Amino acid sequence: MTAYADYKPLTFHDATRRFTDGSDSPRAYLERCLEAIAAREPVVKALTAINETRARAAADASTQRWKAGKALSPIDGMPVAIKDLLETKDMPTEMGCVAMKGNFPKRDNAGVWALRQAGAVILAKTVTAELGGSHPGPTTNPFDARRTPGGSSSGSAAAVGANMVPVAIGTQVGGSIIRPAAYCGNFALKPTQGGINRGERLATSMSTHGPHAGCLEDMWQTAIEQAKRCGGDRGSLGLIGPDTLPAAIKPNRLIVLETEGWPDVDAATREAFAKLLGQLTAAGVTLIRRTDHPFVETLEKAIANGRAVCGGITSWENRWYQRGMLDAAPDGLSERAKATLLKAEAMTLDDYRSGLLARQQAQVAHAAVAQFADAAITLACPGPAPIWSGDEPGKPLAPRPTGDFVFNAPSSMLFAPVVTVPLMSVGGLPVGVQLMGQQHEDARVTGLARWFSENLKRVHG
Amino acid sequence: MTAYADYKPLTFHDATRRFTDGSDSPRAYLERCLEAIAAREPVVKALTAINETRARAAADASTQRWKAGKALSPIDGMPVAIKDLLETKDMPTEMGCVAMKGNFPKRDNAGVWALRQAGAVILAKTVTAELGGSHPGPTTNPFDARRTPGGSSSGSAAAVGANMVPVAIGTQVGGSIIRPAAYCGNFALKPTQGGINRGERLATSMSTHGPHAGCLEDMWQTAIEQAKRCGGDRGSLGLIGPDTLPAAIKPNRLIVLETEGWPDVDAATREAFAKLLGQLTAAGVTLIRRTDHPFVETLEKAIANGRAVCGGITSWENRWYQRGMLDAAPDGLSERAKATLLKAEAMTLDDYRSGLLARQQAQVAHAAVAQFADAAITLACPGPAPIWSGDEPGKPLAPRPTGDFVFNAPSSMLFAPVVTVPLMSVGGLPVGVQLMGQQHEDARVTGLARWFSENLKRVHG
Repeated sequence: MTAYADYKPLTFHDATRRFTDGSDSPRAYLERCLEAIAAREPVVKALTAINETRARAAADASTQRWKAGKALSPIDGMPVAIKDLLETKDMPTEMGCVAMKGNFPKRDNAGVWALRQAGAVILAKTVTAELGGSHPGPTTNPFDARRTPGGSSSGSAAAVGANMVPVAIGTQVGGSIIRPAAYCGNFALKPTQGGINRGERLATSMSTHGPHAGCLEDMWQTAIEQAKRCGGDRGSLGLIGPDTLPAAIKPNRLIVLETEGWPDVDAATREAFAKLLGQLTAAGVTLIRRTDHPFVETLEKAIANGRAVCGGITSWENRWYQRGMLDAAPDGLSERAKATLLKAEAMTLDDYRSGLLARQQAQVAHAAVAQFADAAITLACPGPAPIWSGDEPGKPLAPRPTGDFVFNAPSSMLFAPVVTVPLMSVGGLPVGVQLMGQQHEDARVTGLARWFSENLKRVHG
Repeated sequence: MTAYADYKPLTFHDATRRFTDGSDSPRAYLERCLEAIAAREPVVKALTAINETRARAAADASTQRWKAGKALSPIDGMPVAIKDLLETKDMPTEMGCVAMKGNFPKRDNAGVWALRQAGAVILAKTVTAELGGSHPGPTTNPFDARRTPGGSSSGSAAAVGANMVPVAIGTQVGGSIIRPAAYCGNFALKPTQGGINRGERLATSMSTHGPHAGCLEDMWQTAIEQAKRCGGDRGSLGLIGPDTLPAAIKPNRLIVLETEGWPDVDAATREAFAKLLGQLTAAGVTLIRRTDHPFVETLEKAIANGRAVCGGITSWENRWYQRGMLDAAPDGLSERAKATLLKAEAMTLDDYRSGLLARQQAQVAHAAVAQFADAAITLACPGPAPIWSGDEPGKPLAPRPTGDFVFNAPSSMLFAPVVTVPLMSVGGLPVGVQLMGQQHEDARVTGLARWFSENLKRVHG
């Protein structure tokens, strides 16, 4: 375990110049990752599968390309771990679900294919909460093993937080990239809906794929290399932006969102966030709250019920395939997943359509604030990762063992791009701050996040 | 084989009143379908699988419900065949593809689940062109066995045309419902994009599911019973309309689309279509062509390259999963499918995005004509089904063995609802006429089709 105060993230972008002069190599980089895995994995439990043989062969090939000056991309040779919802041709895809045990379709998801095309080394699969829902896997928080790493991208967030890999791919429907990233001290991008091709993934209308990383350079580079090769979802133009990390953008005006979940945030987290906002004000950034503009109030009202709207839409969209799994394997789903399925099966079509309309209205309200703010800022999680020691037999199931996605539902339902920046430490544990832009503003939000990262000091609470 | 002039379609909606008085029953209805299958299937070859045991049990249960006055819906007891791209829990799903041989996931697609909930009897799977593409299966046209039934919903169209079942489910990306329906004398609905829940289906941004039927009553009832139970695609409000066939709507103004493909239509088909338009004029309907309004010209220009736009978008969207199949099973795809995949792999992301922009521009142009016309009318296929006797060894692959989708690409790229009505006979073979409305006007287009069906006489060419 590393104390968060001593944490130095693993980065890749700054290692590559030594690949050309031979003082380092993708193979040596990979071996360091394997050492970190050997040291940390017994407690962190981030991985479901690892393919050392194939990864070493891929790293050796990359080593030759860098030496020959023929790297396929800036991420050639970068070890990457893949959330175990996505298919990979050389490792099983079991989705954290008993019913999927042994599933090994021997093909690559479009985004994984794109990473390989860019030369990345697909090293391991990472633990996901069951089917991307809320039933947790075994992963622990790399900064405190009693605590959850968040979910559902539990293993991707923890693997990056434990320096096992510089980058891991996560997925989000409600809050499954940004929350675990925020709990584990990662940078992460939840792109605009449709930004990265989801390939074959059984996916809902709000699901997205995005990178967890130790730095913004690696985060952006991974996403843009994927998008350049496989584009966005079917029917979507996909992530568009510069070939390398966007330049830093200093914001002029930021909306501070204090919506659903805010009243429950602990005092230390609130205080730390207030300090961060103080740095912004001191830098000349204008902060806009609901009392400053009626459109902000309209937006906050439109997303006030975001958790329920996202949960309803998503569980409805999942009900057929999960019913099929359960009918075929009655013990194949957790009690937690079964309870969600039963709730979804009690919904009517009009319930679902009401959720869609609420989502569309919220998107209209969000578009309306574009005219007077560069982005919105809010917490990426409601404080440090909670302690989780398992359900207690005979007691009702804990509602959110991987933490609360209350601060993540808004960007999910708005289809908006978000970057989380590890700018807070509360009780010695990481807490992320998120910047949210308008749809298709992924590059701009990343530029704003870069300015944050380069100009603000980490606050402590 | 039946001569088309003697063809009397099989219907279900008018059989149900005799289910309550006991003079007929779902079980007896099913047995008649099985007899028709026994008589016609050796030549028509529409089916890939049949589950008589389970269908008989379902029909018996339905028989009891009708007797007890407890039918689950107006389609309770209706035998339905399902295109073999959709998963069914009691029959394999092989997608007309060698690589999928033996695939049997033992779960129901959302739309199949909905049919069972409504009491329908899932009787058989129907032949699809390979993976919904253009490589044909063994099915022959029920009105001339030398000819194609069209594709990719080859078996669904032929099974209805051969009176094996009153309704079969098809799917369309480019022209895969409407064209085979038009070649086989069916009524069929290609709903607004997203109208019927596609469930787990590996699907592109333009794919839809829809019913082939012997009459409009059964066509509409099937679609609306599905939509009431499983709604539309994730993120879509889905098909909305009355609980039974919409009332007939007499059109005031119809746009006659004479776009890509029109110059190649044979003289007999043109002549027959002109006769049909003559009936409309005589009934007081105003016909609007490109020379009558600049917006019609704008629309025709926007869809003029529809076949290439649809083909490019779709093959790009399919490339990752098909590459995965081919890598896993080098002999698992036909040469025709491999050639399409190689073309898709030669496309750039900008090629794909250009296709999407062309599609969006066409949709804008289509929305602009809503103000001055009730719908658009055009041929549903470019004449009678062509003769097809297989590829010739050593010669280049025939480009379109299941016929040309040139008249179907527009509604696909416009996401627009279309109903085909079997109102023409050319050389003794069926040719369909299609009505296309604005997005979400499925019920209105069906009402217009009903007026056509009730007020126009079949024309001969």
